[in-house]
Order: sequence, then structure tokens, then C-alpha cells
Amino acid sequence: MLWLDLQKGRRHPDGMMAEEISGYGETLMRQAIGLAAKGTGTTHPNPRVGALVVNHGAVVGTGWHQRAGGPHAEVVALQEAGDRARDGVLYVTLEPCAAHGRTPACTDAIQRAGIRHVVYASSDPNPKMAGGHRVLEAAGITVTAGVLKAEADALNTAFFHYVRTGRPYVIAKAAISLDGRLATRTHHSQWISGEASRLHAHHLRAACDAVLVGAGTLRRDNPSLTVRDVPVVGDTPLRVVIALQTPSFFADCKLLAGDAPTRFYVRSVNQHTDAWRQAGVDVVQVTSLAETLSHLAEDGRLQLLLEGGGDLHASFFEAGYSSELVLYQAPMLIGGRDAVSLWPGMGAETIAGALYLDDIERQMLGVDQLIRGRIVYPDG
Amino acid sequence: MLWLDLQKGRRHPDGMMAEEISGYGETLMRQAIGLAAKGTGTTHPNPRVGALVVNHGAVVGTGWHQRAGGPHAEVVALQEAGDRARDGVLYVTLEPCAAHGRTPACTDAIQRAGIRHVVYASSDPNPKMAGGHRVLEAAGITVTAGVLKAEADALNTAFFHYVRTGRPYVIAKAAISLDGRLATRTHHSQWISGEASRLHAHHLRAACDAVLVGAGTLRRDNPSLTVRDVPVVGDTPLRVVIALQTPSFFADCKLLAGDAPTRFYVRSVNQHTDAWRQAGVDVVQVTSLAETLSHLAEDGRLQLLLEGGGDLHASFFEAGYSSELVLYQAPMLIGGRDAVSLWPGMGAETIAGALYLDDIERQMLGVDQLIRGRIVYPDG
Repeated sequence: MLWLDLQKGRRHPDGMMAEEISGYGETLMRQAIGLAAKGTGTTHPNPRVGALVVNHGAVVGTGWHQRAGGPHAEVVALQEAGDRARDGVLYVTLEPCAAHGRTPACTDAIQRAGIRHVVYASSDPNPKMAGGHRVLEAAGITVTAGVLKAEADALNTAFFHYVRTGRPYVIAKAAISLDGRLATRTHHSQWISGEASRLHAHHLRAACDAVLVGAGTLRRDNPSLTVRDVPVVGDTPLRVVIALQTPSFFADCKLLAGDAPTRFYVRSVNQHTDAWRQAGVDVVQVTSLAETLSHLAEDGRLQLLLEGGGDLHASFFEAGYSSELVLYQAPMLIGGRDAVSLWPGMGAETIAGALYLDDIERQMLGVDQLIRGRIVYPDG
Repeated sequence: MLWLDLQKGRRHPDGMMAEEISGYGETLMRQAIGLAAKGTGTTHPNPRVGALVVNHGAVVGTGWHQRAGGPHAEVVALQEAGDRARDGVLYVTLEPCAAHGRTPACTDAIQRAGIRHVVYASSDPNPKMAGGHRVLEAAGITVTAGVLKAEADALNTAFFHYVRTGRPYVIAKAAISLDGRLATRTHHSQWISGEASRLHAHHLRAACDAVLVGAGTLRRDNPSLTVRDVPVVGDTPLRVVIALQTPSFFADCKLLAGDAPTRFYVRSVNQHTDAWRQAGVDVVQVTSLAETLSHLAEDGRLQLLLEGGGDLHASFFEAGYSSELVLYQAPMLIGGRDAVSLWPGMGAETIAGALYLDDIERQMLGVDQLIRGRIVYPDG
């Protein structure tokens, strides 16, 4: 059993080294992270959370959060453990909640079950839910925080971003040439990137809650925006078109086919709106991009894939709404003053005002290079 | 001694395996390539060539071509070998010439010296000079071609390109953001790339015969276009400005300082021309970009570094004049419809009309990625 603060590396009273316990504890936490990942694509707007109950070296209960409104991971694991939870250790990827939300507070369930030690990875960033650590300690339960924190945080990048900013987490994605073009001056773009890149992009879609394009992309490319050739992770992503006014109706629009739901966000409705609605498209009128993002977040769409075109990317970059960039960069030069750029609009005035990529991952996908990183805005 | 065709791997009459001889022959050819490289930056417009004479396992003569008008590498090596060349083997990086140019034909010297076997790497692409192979064989000398051909060809990329096309070999170079920008909308560009990239760019300048910029770069950046912080290889590169008309004179122009010669190519001269000439700038009037390149080639400037800005890059890409691309790509997004692109102008109409990079080399230089490759034009 784990009786000490793993993070601080204190010596255990009975002489076991912290490092040994730490290794054991991390192995169990990694199992809990694996359980949490099963909720990918279904827990929104809630975080992904996994939990295990261990007693005398045996795992006696496991659980993960499956859907908003359903029981939290800890409660599932404690129920499975039953009486064997008494004097046991609870491993959970997120700090247990101390507040009664849609379900009762987990800290109450932990106390009732007789758990003597709680080990968790990520702290809860939600001010309404946090404080579990303090409540548990006040009840005489030993608490160890931060075990495999980075790995557990990565499960919930979008959720944590949402709690911090109130906005969904946006991944800006583009297939791009070395000279920064998304399409030629005639808007031709098939194909800039190769097959391996396009398959990767479908995996990316599959892990998002919604896929966004602008009205120009809808009209010119008539995309289906579905997940193809890879399994969908969790719910099918919502297909979203962002437009100033309701686009002209066209019956062969590929968004009218397939299982995925479709929604248009428009600033103004017009005579085409009813035709789209009758064809099954949810047309929502908004006053701003900010309102669009709020609406998506309230609908539980916390991780968005922004697929362009350039004007939509520009709006998101200039408002600071894109948090991550995924480029499939093809070894190609397209050229042309009127070709489509990743970021038209105003752009930076000086190099100090440019956006930077941090935590960059590079990977060859055929002859293309995947470049993926966190966008750092000049103001921080 | 090498008595057989190394390329075909035939068994040697006395039983030595071709592979053993091949390894030995390659070692000697690699020495000859090393000798040839000593001519980097000084042989233009002639190729870099190195040679060794070997007799009974001993190197008895070495030589390399130093300057146009001076003796060819073979002749230098044969002179050093003297009588010891008789019945020897000549290793030379380029097929010996059979024609009397500024100097007598090398094939004559080889016969007179009594060489019995010539091993060479690159074939001579110059129709005026080629045919050495046939002449030597007709004289009863064994000839082996193509040993380390790729390595030897790489010594003379610019020369071979010139012989084939009549134009200098142009390396287009730029520091660029992920979205393909060379500068912001206010033409601010210091610094997109980091220190390691800038040092690499000076190495690149040092290995070229001339460095080219447009009039906009001259006016906005006032560049010195000198080689700094690295040794110059051979002659100091010529500094070239390409402009429609003679740029306005300004006395603090950095091109007026430093040891390197400076030349302006202009379509029309004006009242500023005399001031530049009095300050030491060679102002040459031309009618086209093609004439500019011919003039540079006739002056022996066979390897050019094109440093931009965007409009000059565009002219070269659209005329098919740039053969190699070197990008220092910084993990940065600059954005802006009016920002400076690598390639404004018309650009490709469809993806099939885009330029491709082949034989790509990628290397991290700090946080930047060096992307270097051969440009493939859509027509082949």
C-alpha cells in the first residue's frame, strides 16, 4: 500500500524506498489512464477519467466515466469493489470532485467506502468542482497528487482549455505547400498532401467533437466531412459550416448524406434557410464567432477541428481561438499572388507579433511532413 | 594495378576479385575527388577536376585544376610523375578532354606519358570536349568510366548545368515562416530564422560565385551581401542587384563597403548611374533576365545564390531558372494578405502545375528546419 507522498519522495516508515513505491504507483496510474481513454469521444462536455481501487496488492474495482450525467469513474470503481474498498487505495486520473453536480460528490462516496489513501494525477481546474484534495484530507484520508500528471492532463487538453477559457479547444489543420498555400489561384487543391497524410487527417477528425469549414469550402469543394477509412472514436463528429448568411441550397450537398449531424452557423438567415432545415441541417443564427464557439461548447463540443479555408483560419488566428496547429506540408511550391494562403487577413505587423509553434512534433508521412504544435500567441 | 572494368565487376585475369580492386580504385578516386575540391571557388567557368597517377601501388603524381587557362589536373599529375607515369594508371574525376582548347588535349599528354589505364568518374558533358574515352581506347589504353560518378558529379553540379542549359546554376534561398512568408506586411523580417540558420546561409554564400537580390531588398534592407563568420571558399562572391532601372544612389549603401565586387543589372539607366559607377559599382544594362544570366555565365559566375525578395524569386520560378531550393523554415506564422510571399506572381493554375522538390535534405538548425532540394518543374 502507498502511504506516503510519492511526489516528494519521502522515505516510507517501514523502510521501502519512495522510488519503488513510485514505480508501482505509476504502473497502476497508467492503468487508470488507459481506462479513462475509453471515454474518448463520449464524455464531452465532461473530462475523461479512469479509476482503480487496490487492496492488499489486488485491483478490486475499475471504472471510467462514460457519459455526462452518468456516474463518475471513482463511483463505478468503488461500486465494483464493494466491501473490498475498505482500507484500500483509490487511483484516479483526476482529483475527485467535492461538489454535488449532476451526480453526488465523489468525496462523500470515497469516505463512505472507507478508502484510506487517494492517489490522483491531474488537479481539477474547474473552480466549481475543485477542493476534493482538501475535503479528503480533512476527513483523515491520505492524498497523493500529481502522479503521471502530464500524461493524464493530455487526456483532457480540450476540457482543461474549456474550463480555463470558456471556449472549445480548436485544432487548426491544413494541407499546405512549402510556400504556405492551401490551393492555387483557381482554388485547386486536390491533392496537395499524399495518402498517408489524408489518412492521418481522418484519425484527427475521428478524435474531435466537430469539424468546421467556411462557406467557401462548402461551395467549392462540397466536402462530406465524415470520418473515413478509420474507426470513429466515440460519437460521430458534428459537421459545421460557418457562414455570413445561409449558403445557397444545393441538393447534391454531401453534408446531406452520411450519419453525421450537420449544423450551419450564420449571421443572417435568408430564403435558403428552410430548404436546409427541411433537409435535416440545424441552422443556428449567431452574432459572432465568439457566440458560435460558446454555442458549440454548451452543446458539449469541446474539441474542434478547423479545416479552413484560409479566411476562416485567418479569423481564428486573429481572434486567438486556435490553440494547436496540424500541418501536412507537401514538398511543393504553388505560388501566385492570388493563391489561397493559410492566413490571409491582417497578419503580424512585425516578427515580434508573429505566432510561434511550441512542443513541436514532426513526422514524415510519405513525402509530406506532419508538423504539429501548440500555438503561442505574442501576448502570452 | 587495375586491369579490368570496375563497373562490370569482371574477374581479374590473375584471380583477384573485382570487389577488392573496386574498393582500392574507389579509395584512389576519393583522393582524386578531394584534390578536385581544392579548386572550389576558383576554377569557374571550368569544372573542378582532380587526378592521381599510380604505379606499382604507389601514388607518383597528383594534380588539380586551379584556374581557367591554367593546366588541367591530368597534366599537372603527369608532370609530377614524370617517367614514373610509364605503364601507370591515371585516376581522374572527369573524362579527359580530347580537344585543344586554351590548353592542349589531355588525351595527347596521357598517350605521350605512356599511361596504360585511365579510370575516370564523370563523363564530360561538354560536346566540344567529350570523346576522350574513345580517343584513349583507340590508342590502346584501357578505360574504366563511372567510378564514384555521383560523388564526382556533385563537385560540378553548376558546371554540368551550365553545359547542358547555357545558364548558371541558381540556388533560391529564403528564411521563411510555416505559412510561406519572407516578411510581414510592413516588410519586417529580422529575424525569421535563428542564428544557426544564418550561419548556414553564410556558408552557402561562401560557396557561390555571386549573390543576387532585387531592388526592393537593396532599398529596404540595405544588405552587405558579404560572407561573414565563415571562411570564403575561393574567390569572394560577386554582389549583384537586379533592377528595372538604376536604383537611387545612397552613400551609406553597404554594398559600397567591403572587399567584394558589386554589379547592378538594369533594364534602363538613369541619372543615378554615374554616381554608382564613380562609387565603384559595375552598372550593366541588359534587356532581360535571360541576358543577365548569360552575362553572369560569360563572366564565369556559374553558381548563383538568389536571396530574394519575393518578386525576384517569382521571376526565377516562373522562368524555370532556379534549380535548387534552400529554405530555413522557422516554426512561426506571420500571416497577412499583404505580407511578402516566397512566390507572388502568377503561380501554378492547378496542383499538377506546381513545382516539386526532389532529393530533399532536412536538418534541424536550432528550432528552424533546413529544407534543401532539387526543384522539379512540371514540364520535366
